[in-house]
Amino acid sequence: LAILSLTTDFGTKDGNTGVMKGVIWGINPEIQIADLSHYITPQNVREASLVLDRQVWYFPPGTVHVVVVDPGVGTKRRPIASQIGQHFFVGPDNGVFSLLYERAEKNGWPVKIVHTNNSKYWLSDISNVFHGRDIFSPVGAYLASGVNLEDLGEVIDDPIRFDLPQPTLRDKAVVGQVMRIDHFGNIITNIRAEHISSMEDVNVTLCGYTIEGMVKTFGERRPGEIIALFGSTGYLIISEVNGSASNRLSPKIDDFVEVLAS
Amino acid sequence: LAILSLTTDFGTKDGNTGVMKGVIWGINPEIQIADLSHYITPQNVREASLVLDRQVWYFPPGTVHVVVVDPGVGTKRRPIASQIGQHFFVGPDNGVFSLLYERAEKNGWPVKIVHTNNSKYWLSDISNVFHGRDIFSPVGAYLASGVNLEDLGEVIDDPIRFDLPQPTLRDKAVVGQVMRIDHFGNIITNIRAEHISSMEDVNVTLCGYTIEGMVKTFGERRPGEIIALFGSTGYLIISEVNGSASNRLSPKIDDFVEVLAS
Amino acid sequence: LAILSLTTDFGTKDGNTGVMKGVIWGINPEIQIADLSHYITPQNVREASLVLDRQVWYFPPGTVHVVVVDPGVGTKRRPIASQIGQHFFVGPDNGVFSLLYERAEKNGWPVKIVHTNNSKYWLSDISNVFHGRDIFSPVGAYLASGVNLEDLGEVIDDPIRFDLPQPTLRDKAVVGQVMRIDHFGNIITNIRAEHISSMEDVNVTLCGYTIEGMVKTFGERRPGEIIALFGSTGYLIISEVNGSASNRLSPKIDDFVEVLAS
Repeated sequence: LAILSLTTDFGTKDGNTGVMKGVIWGINPEIQIADLSHYITPQNVREASLVLDRQVWYFPPGTVHVVVVDPGVGTKRRPIASQIGQHFFVGPDNGVFSLLYERAEKNGWPVKIVHTNNSKYWLSDISNVFHGRDIFSPVGAYLASGVNLEDLGEVIDDPIRFDLPQPTLRDKAVVGQVMRIDHFGNIITNIRAEHISSMEDVNVTLCGYTIEGMVKTFGERRPGEIIALFGSTGYLIISEVNGSASNRLSPKIDDFVEVLAS
Repeated sequence: LAILSLTTDFGTKDGNTGVMKGVIWGINPEIQIADLSHYITPQNVREASLVLDRQVWYFPPGTVHVVVVDPGVGTKRRPIASQIGQHFFVGPDNGVFSLLYERAEKNGWPVKIVHTNNSKYWLSDISNVFHGRDIFSPVGAYLASGVNLEDLGEVIDDPIRFDLPQPTLRDKAVVGQVMRIDHFGNIITNIRAEHISSMEDVNVTLCGYTIEGMVKTFGERRPGEIIALFGSTGYLIISEVNGSASNRLSPKIDDFVEVLAS
Repeated sequence: LAILSLTTDFGTKDGNTGVMKGVIWGINPEIQIADLSHYITPQNVREASLVLDRQVWYFPPGTVHVVVVDPGVGTKRRPIASQIGQHFFVGPDNGVFSLLYERAEKNGWPVKIVHTNNSKYWLSDISNVFHGRDIFSPVGAYLASGVNLEDLGEVIDDPIRFDLPQPTLRDKAVVGQVMRIDHFGNIITNIRAEHISSMEDVNVTLCGYTIEGMVKTFGERRPGEIIALFGSTGYLIISEVNGSASNRLSPKIDDFVEVLAS
């Protein structure tokens, strides 16, 4: 069985994610489909890119990741498909794959991108508002079934990209930002271990609250304590043990987070 | 692999949708199961019918759609299964399939309905409150595994049905109603293109707000603008570009929507 | 195809449940995966145990149930796997399987538990905060693929356990507690039919509201009425017909529920 993942901002109440599976299985029922997320904040391309870069590399080589966070649906934004390292991606060319291109460059992985304008691999009727069903699902299904990337359309080399904001590095301080808040209320920043590796002991400040020192895991502190640690993908996160740091500190996306040598 | 979809009002926290998959795969693990929706508004049979009619026709022929929005569970309401066109359906006889019967009649598709009272295809113990697990899941699994519709029970010709409210058509005006509000806050009405095709330019009014003209897709207007367009299944919808029209206008289900020639 | 279920408190927006499927299918794509719940209240081990005991026995024999409600991740709490009756379980040794051990003892089912410390069946890199991805998913995938329980680690006989609070039984009264509130607002107690079988007619009181008599199913009373009945797994539940008893009565978990002979 081939593997395919779905990442959208569709939610799950309207049937719009289920119908994508219907379209995919209509082309090839021998595909395992994992819902990666359907609760990306609507139209939030950067959040989707962060979630993808956190998760997709754990899927087996050859997995096809279909991504539909698509505020420009129905406009001239291109539908694209790509091979990035050993993974395939299908979705709108709106920057949602930016962090994946960046990781490929850092790791020296091959990247090939096509504008999927070969309508042979689309549904026969294309709506103006639901390319997730009409274009991205069938293209993903064909890709997972062995159709070559190059058959889907013309190779391009100018995909839309954005850069994640980078922390400001000073002598004894690093100033980063809040990138994402997860289901547990963990606050994920753009600060990585390499940014603060030269400092021995640190204090972390967010929303006027200062955490002294960092820990390795939740169990080192008692329930209710606010802690700073590196999450499973290497970013500094701020958490409440057995609670929600987001509820306690009420940060907003892009708020500043300061790490100071203590 | 056979294909089966699930549509319920169960939510996803209690395990009641997962257990249906356990029952189905206990009968036949070679079935792909798509969650269509588990967030139908509790007991809202009309909303379920609207979601089904929007989505099921995109699944491959032969798909079995199991539907459990079932306020009458444990009463004398019949469990039924049907073939409508090339699709199969299993669920309570409470009107939830109404819009599918209607579409079949419009398109001249065959319809056959049975009262699934052959308990050979049920679980051995039947609770009074969870026929989704005890009756509809096993019946759906057997149907997806090749059991004939007629073997599940007696053919009936008097299923419960309701009609969707129809827009009022006047000379230069159409008055419809809000049918559904989706995850993005799009407001879906019961007005179709054919209802207003004789008008050239139109104004659309809802909750005291008037939209001048219609567009073809979101990208034609700027973020924050309220627009009217035809959705991917042909109904007039009211949206905010990159936002939530529902949050802006606060409509209620069944509120009137007026389309006037301008 | 083998069957595996997932029960977590991860929610579905961050991709942390999808990535578990990626890890599992990377080991063996021939596994059907059912999401049992990803909306266990964060860190609520007792709630997870109640949901598991309600649902897992309906899955086919040989199913592997992977459970990740894991406030002690990264500490010395053991990762364990077990065979309980004809089912397999993988997760943290924090009591989350308590009600399953209890059911096995009542029914005389065999129980075997191992500390899954054989890192051959883990991912190669283990984070301090996400053993669901790094340990429990691969261990579950190998177990579903035919690896023997004993190969996963050393047999243990001292798993962490808790007892569910038991109702107080008096002459003509039983006092139980609220255990769980479901998606429909049904209030599930720890009172079972055997606790009150000696009483003929009963009144049920919760949050100052008294229900006279019990019913067998929702359809016996009119929409809006508050009723008491036995749910599909034998516990007394308090419901509003076509509504939410939880919204009406606002109970809290562990609140007392009194059943009095009338």
